[in-house]
Amino acid sequence: MARELFTYYNGKIVPDSAVNVHYSDSGMSFGHAVTDSARTFHLRPFKLREHITRFYQTMRAVRINPGMPPETMEQITLEVLAANKPLLEADEDVWITQTATGGRLKSAIGRWEFGTPTLIINLSRLPFASFAHLYQTGVHAVTPSTRHIPPQCLDPKIKHRNRLGMSLAEFEVKEVDPEAFALLLDIYGNLAENKGGNFFVVKDGVLSTPTTRNTLDGVSRATVLELAQQLGIPAREEDLQPYHAITADEAFFCTTSFCIMPATRFNGYVIGDGKPGPVVKCLQQAWGEMVGVDFVAQAAQRAAQATAST
Amino acid sequence: MARELFTYYNGKIVPDSAVNVHYSDSGMSFGHAVTDSARTFHLRPFKLREHITRFYQTMRAVRINPGMPPETMEQITLEVLAANKPLLEADEDVWITQTATGGRLKSAIGRWEFGTPTLIINLSRLPFASFAHLYQTGVHAVTPSTRHIPPQCLDPKIKHRNRLGMSLAEFEVKEVDPEAFALLLDIYGNLAENKGGNFFVVKDGVLSTPTTRNTLDGVSRATVLELAQQLGIPAREEDLQPYHAITADEAFFCTTSFCIMPATRFNGYVIGDGKPGPVVKCLQQAWGEMVGVDFVAQAAQRAAQATAST
Amino acid sequence: MARELFTYYNGKIVPDSAVNVHYSDSGMSFGHAVTDSARTFHLRPFKLREHITRFYQTMRAVRINPGMPPETMEQITLEVLAANKPLLEADEDVWITQTATGGRLKSAIGRWEFGTPTLIINLSRLPFASFAHLYQTGVHAVTPSTRHIPPQCLDPKIKHRNRLGMSLAEFEVKEVDPEAFALLLDIYGNLAENKGGNFFVVKDGVLSTPTTRNTLDGVSRATVLELAQQLGIPAREEDLQPYHAITADEAFFCTTSFCIMPATRFNGYVIGDGKPGPVVKCLQQAWGEMVGVDFVAQAAQRAAQATAST
Amino acid sequence: MARELFTYYNGKIVPDSAVNVHYSDSGMSFGHAVTDSARTFHLRPFKLREHITRFYQTMRAVRINPGMPPETMEQITLEVLAANKPLLEADEDVWITQTATGGRLKSAIGRWEFGTPTLIINLSRLPFASFAHLYQTGVHAVTPSTRHIPPQCLDPKIKHRNRLGMSLAEFEVKEVDPEAFALLLDIYGNLAENKGGNFFVVKDGVLSTPTTRNTLDGVSRATVLELAQQLGIPAREEDLQPYHAITADEAFFCTTSFCIMPATRFNGYVIGDGKPGPVVKCLQQAWGEMVGVDFVAQAAQRAAQATAST
Amino acid sequence: MARELFTYYNGKIVPDSAVNVHYSDSGMSFGHAVTDSARTFHLRPFKLREHITRFYQTMRAVRINPGMPPETMEQITLEVLAANKPLLEADEDVWITQTATGGRLKSAIGRWEFGTPTLIINLSRLPFASFAHLYQTGVHAVTPSTRHIPPQCLDPKIKHRNRLGMSLAEFEVKEVDPEAFALLLDIYGNLAENKGGNFFVVKDGVLSTPTTRNTLDGVSRATVLELAQQLGIPAREEDLQPYHAITADEAFFCTTSFCIMPATRFNGYVIGDGKPGPVVKCLQQAWGEMVGVDFVAQAAQRAAQATAST
Amino acid sequence: MARELFTYYNGKIVPDSAVNVHYSDSGMSFGHAVTDSARTFHLRPFKLREHITRFYQTMRAVRINPGMPPETMEQITLEVLAANKPLLEADEDVWITQTATGGRLKSAIGRWEFGTPTLIINLSRLPFASFAHLYQTGVHAVTPSTRHIPPQCLDPKIKHRNRLGMSLAEFEVKEVDPEAFALLLDIYGNLAENKGGNFFVVKDGVLSTPTTRNTLDGVSRATVLELAQQLGIPAREEDLQPYHAITADEAFFCTTSFCIMPATRFNGYVIGDGKPGPVVKCLQQAWGEMVGVDFVAQAAQRAAQATAST
Repeated sequence: MARELFTYYNGKIVPDSAVNVHYSDSGMSFGHAVTDSARTFHLRPFKLREHITRFYQTMRAVRINPGMPPETMEQITLEVLAANKPLLEADEDVWITQTATGGRLKSAIGRWEFGTPTLIINLSRLPFASFAHLYQTGVHAVTPSTRHIPPQCLDPKIKHRNRLGMSLAEFEVKEVDPEAFALLLDIYGNLAENKGGNFFVVKDGVLSTPTTRNTLDGVSRATVLELAQQLGIPAREEDLQPYHAITADEAFFCTTSFCIMPATRFNGYVIGDGKPGPVVKCLQQAWGEMVGVDFVAQAAQRAAQATAST
Repeated sequence: MARELFTYYNGKIVPDSAVNVHYSDSGMSFGHAVTDSARTFHLRPFKLREHITRFYQTMRAVRINPGMPPETMEQITLEVLAANKPLLEADEDVWITQTATGGRLKSAIGRWEFGTPTLIINLSRLPFASFAHLYQTGVHAVTPSTRHIPPQCLDPKIKHRNRLGMSLAEFEVKEVDPEAFALLLDIYGNLAENKGGNFFVVKDGVLSTPTTRNTLDGVSRATVLELAQQLGIPAREEDLQPYHAITADEAFFCTTSFCIMPATRFNGYVIGDGKPGPVVKCLQQAWGEMVGVDFVAQAAQRAAQATAST
Repeated sequence: MARELFTYYNGKIVPDSAVNVHYSDSGMSFGHAVTDSARTFHLRPFKLREHITRFYQTMRAVRINPGMPPETMEQITLEVLAANKPLLEADEDVWITQTATGGRLKSAIGRWEFGTPTLIINLSRLPFASFAHLYQTGVHAVTPSTRHIPPQCLDPKIKHRNRLGMSLAEFEVKEVDPEAFALLLDIYGNLAENKGGNFFVVKDGVLSTPTTRNTLDGVSRATVLELAQQLGIPAREEDLQPYHAITADEAFFCTTSFCIMPATRFNGYVIGDGKPGPVVKCLQQAWGEMVGVDFVAQAAQRAAQATAST
Repeated sequence: MARELFTYYNGKIVPDSAVNVHYSDSGMSFGHAVTDSARTFHLRPFKLREHITRFYQTMRAVRINPGMPPETMEQITLEVLAANKPLLEADEDVWITQTATGGRLKSAIGRWEFGTPTLIINLSRLPFASFAHLYQTGVHAVTPSTRHIPPQCLDPKIKHRNRLGMSLAEFEVKEVDPEAFALLLDIYGNLAENKGGNFFVVKDGVLSTPTTRNTLDGVSRATVLELAQQLGIPAREEDLQPYHAITADEAFFCTTSFCIMPATRFNGYVIGDGKPGPVVKCLQQAWGEMVGVDFVAQAAQRAAQATAST
Repeated sequence: MARELFTYYNGKIVPDSAVNVHYSDSGMSFGHAVTDSARTFHLRPFKLREHITRFYQTMRAVRINPGMPPETMEQITLEVLAANKPLLEADEDVWITQTATGGRLKSAIGRWEFGTPTLIINLSRLPFASFAHLYQTGVHAVTPSTRHIPPQCLDPKIKHRNRLGMSLAEFEVKEVDPEAFALLLDIYGNLAENKGGNFFVVKDGVLSTPTTRNTLDGVSRATVLELAQQLGIPAREEDLQPYHAITADEAFFCTTSFCIMPATRFNGYVIGDGKPGPVVKCLQQAWGEMVGVDFVAQAAQRAAQATAST
Repeated sequence: MARELFTYYNGKIVPDSAVNVHYSDSGMSFGHAVTDSARTFHLRPFKLREHITRFYQTMRAVRINPGMPPETMEQITLEVLAANKPLLEADEDVWITQTATGGRLKSAIGRWEFGTPTLIINLSRLPFASFAHLYQTGVHAVTPSTRHIPPQCLDPKIKHRNRLGMSLAEFEVKEVDPEAFALLLDIYGNLAENKGGNFFVVKDGVLSTPTTRNTLDGVSRATVLELAQQLGIPAREEDLQPYHAITADEAFFCTTSFCIMPATRFNGYVIGDGKPGPVVKCLQQAWGEMVGVDFVAQAAQRAAQATAST
């Protein structure tokens, strides 16, 4: 069984199971919690600075002051990684996650006073077994009837933990397919995002993805756009509708953990010929070369090991 | 200093400071947390059954199965209250709060599996000092530019902990007045609710309050409507706009803790003559008689004691 | 095998298979087709006059002039029924449907000229086998991500044949359950209607159904409201959200063919205890007494015969 | 009088008047009908492949499988054209239209089963007399109060036959001017499209047209954009409001039949100087050169002949 | 020719032609102007107190302090009427209008300071000749494509002078019929109001009118509702759509000047049988009895005199 | 004290205090008033032709015909400037404003007839003292809860005088900060504009500003975009949300009077480091060089003189 990892919690590095937060913390009692996650390749963090920069924007937006500059948080993050390296296998990769909450709210009525923010920096093992096979089959993207929260209520560019609406949407699509990925629509019916990832379609050789008006300004999304530019694949940010997914040649999700995941079905429609397509594969390969890890192969291998060890 | 209270946590009654939840709990990591709160009068819980009934509806809506029938939860709640009674002063009253989360999420990608729900039942002392003086002055209701999450994204009838948007709205109105109460508008511009309470206006002897399309179906709201009926005050549930607050004779918030709180200003406008009005006072008195506690006087007294003991 | 019925078509009663319309008819080429359907009980039409009255309102709204007064259309309808009676079994009941189209459009560019309307009045055998068992289990109501066309685009009170959006919604929910009934939401996220029926929830002894802002002003819906009044069941027309279906004690669809059909699941949630409830049964019984046919028993019997004869 | 043409209908080429569809076909009973139309120049089809490609996307979107590959449909279309050539005059041009419906729906309740799709491929003579004079005067574009169906209900990129809302909008604008062209607004108030054509404005030498979020991705629209690029006229796809039409230098509609039609009035306002402008004429000429037909002159000539022969 | 009337202007009663306001007054430069109008019957003001009460609410809503209590304004109003009586004919009736503006804005940048409000109280002769004949024919209600400003931008319950959007809407419908009355839709497609009046439909003996969410809380509207109650005509306030006007038995506008004006056409549809109906006439008669003036006859008579004297 | 200026009023140049408009003018009674303003630098008008061109578009949109070609209006404007030059100090600059109204409305009921338009061309001294210090501190941009009127009701590209909603919004934000600038959101929650100016954010060296869908197509805005192009600063027109202002490096307003005004706070958040930033300064300098006036220094100097002379 996997050994317990170490986690940074309000100034100390402690065993992960010791990181328990009082239930009155505003992170739990008011949803006043934000986060960011990078992942490693060969245990080297990928675009850690970009993630921390975005995390500081998010914290600013929700009025949490972490009490340290981004450089310090980056340093601590690397220390957490270093502390855990002995516990990880050579070909294992992890999520590196920062979480900050507003701390304890002293009063919720009248005057409004928060305490010291809570800050957690932790590693978590990637659940390769839950998604390795999906690289081969592609996933089923399903639009639930629950819609994405509009930015005038809570901006999707803030990477927060108020994911209850998204969870309910996720439950909804699991009724269609137990491994479906919810692809939320915004309240105007445009494609928005998965609870933890962005979405792209490919049509006649052109990439399209929703704008950040209704989606997270994802670091993986930015990486895909950079790779596309390097590869000479034209790309657009624009409002998309379900019609675009139905008539796409290819489609995919991207996120920190699985990087690029083909979507081969949409609401029961077959996308293209129903198999991961050439543009998706090209982007996966380019990403793999950039980070020095064939992440599709890695996932298959780690998933096989997990199965073998059961 | 106030003595530490006891809290129910997943099967046991323990000191409150021991109720720490692992940060990976879906309540904190996904906002998958719901709650309900009753309050006591003379340490007797008020409408506990109604609150627990609503809590079971809320849990159903977010697909949390607490693993016990409502009767058991009511019983445990009373045990928590009994365990704490020796620690409370005779004229002190408390919130009694149930909180449930989805527990630990085993995987967030592909298949979707939650663990055992987390259940917490706790008491908290009412912060009389933060609001006692507001009964005299009335509060300043301010509409932030941030709008209330629409029900097609997350229904306000679900009493959840995804309050980040509301927190940001609350910060916004504190720029106007450090003790202002945010009164959120829905995305169509109708008055909705405060982060923890419903809103009423009084005009020409008639009570009006937003419908539950865009607000919590509050137990205090229902209590006000019952009292109005008993007192022969006509009442309507309808879409209201800021104009209604600006031109109202009186207005008030209602919630579990402070019951009925007059609002005497709205976005800088004086409501009526700027003082708590006769209908508000009549409803406060009727409520007080119903529960056997003059809660306005109680708050003043407890707030004075708090000040004296500082 | 069932014998071919007779149908009225632009002035004559002919065998149904002879009622073929040129593809350029505006009913097919422009969706300029409207309809209404009554059903029989013991082969007596139920509320035929109400259906014809509504049909004339619908035709007026889409600017079709049938060239005859409603009394004449009622008379012809009864003649069609009479002509078919010898072909029907004693305990068989039918839909009686009027359909009118704008006729042939002479030019679609510049000036705009329609020809003589097309008018069809036909009977169709009720597909008891497709729904008889659902009276026992209740149906699964599922909200698709496709939304109901808003009245500012095409009013749902017009009983038209532009059902493509609804068909696509129906396909969407069949992905969840092959016998699911789509329950469309309007663009604001309120419950609207099934492609051919209205929806009710029952909570704490009160009936609620969406208003006709976003639903057909159904004759069956009106019948349910009349029965409720006779039975002393309070009823409300109001905006409802999915939350109302999730937390309802009971729910049901109503329409011309199956009258009242319990809904016992909603988006995978069990409604109430998951079985047809007492209010639904009470309404079914009252309806049956009103028309002199226990339509639940009838459906079971006819479905059994259909199975036996296969 | 014009001689009857031949039409393909479910496998055979037959006289057009023989193409009658049973009224229960889902195309008429559920609006489950889609279509596409190319036109000829000198009886050679223009961009037939593009039209057929789009038709296959449309059919996919509405879950109709025509049972043949696009190459076959293209072949059949050319056969229909060939069969009709002897019946057409040398300088006559036609629409070539494919129509597919879901066929007969076996049951509309519970399980959901369609039969074999209905497929029609027909030619129709262009009604030159109805629009030839409008090339000279320009048309009057009028925005009805009825709005365009939003894509979350039924996507305008699907070329369907559910045109009832559009028909009612068309009737509405005929109250202003019997030859007015309806220019629908979307539900946010942006310019969308005519019931069968796209709309462009010209301002300071730049072309602008609505995006395909709220309009058909028209083949004629694409042709205009291609011609603009060839001619060095900058062009943008963007949300436009009535203000843009009111203050435009020029404006025009484009569609398969009349190609490019100047709009010289808008809601009673004169556009520019009220005459077809230089950019419109330049685009008409370029189109004419591309296809080898001066379609404006052709229309005038054919309209004159039609008048003469009356 | 009619003699010049006297008007109150910032403290004095002067000849009307002398009431000129500097163009920099915020009423003209910022639209910061509000108003209310009563009318007389036999030169006695009707519901003057209600109008003044509403005017004070309106002024409060736009933050204009007139510097006098409502009793004083009522007194001045009566003085203006008295001063003009010698100039009016016995059977002539007038509008009595109060207008207030924010006065001169000292600076529009940074700090924000208004000067002394401008207050005008004037009489104006009713333009009987412009509407007398419409009582007989009924008016044509037409819905423009321009929509009513939503309350989240500017509440229709504020009787302001920012009528430019409504003027443009009025111009739009005059394209349909030079005497048409614009009936604006709100942005959701519900019937709202005319630029200066409320709208009612009558169906099966029941009156319906839009709620004050999207319309002025008109004094005439309230009068109609009171009369309906006295006459035992059931009345509802609810969201209405164009369908309700199309299928109504009768419809009418109501406003201060013409009281009740039948609408007999709607977007080119004939309403009912196209003639003013029994409910409209009954309400007109009841109103006339209440005020002691048969205002329909009066209008005819005055219009005839006007014609004769030309 | 400043000497009275001369103003053009319906054909004559007269002392400004003599330009009084009858209150029944449609500019005041119906808000039927439009305007445009240029400013001078060294008393030379800046982009006067562009302003007059836009003014003619605005007048066209509101159906006002000024009865003269734009060249004449430009000529008169220059004459007004010349007439006033002797009254102005050498280093003083002014607004030059055209205002047109619909004139007197002859009847508001039934037929609809406007009189001769009212036309005013005036100069006004710039209130340097009200904004000079804000160049140093930057302004506080605050989003009120009141939303910007959507273009489907009244297009923001029309520079009209119906500013009541904006005034109420301005009052709202003055509750936060007496010198705050309201930054209205549109009804979808996107940043729109200040009551008299456009808004830009700067992030990572890129300028962004809302599109003209929801803002005035400002001449100053166009000037900023031109300067950015000359300076090689990339610029985008796109939908922006409050998040963009919160996380911007810099932000600013631009308008005719103060040209470019840094915004250093947003809803209480500090923007960037809270000081006017390098891009703002660079644009201010480039603008100053273009017009030959360091307008920041000029404002400081004139404000100091104003203070000294008090």
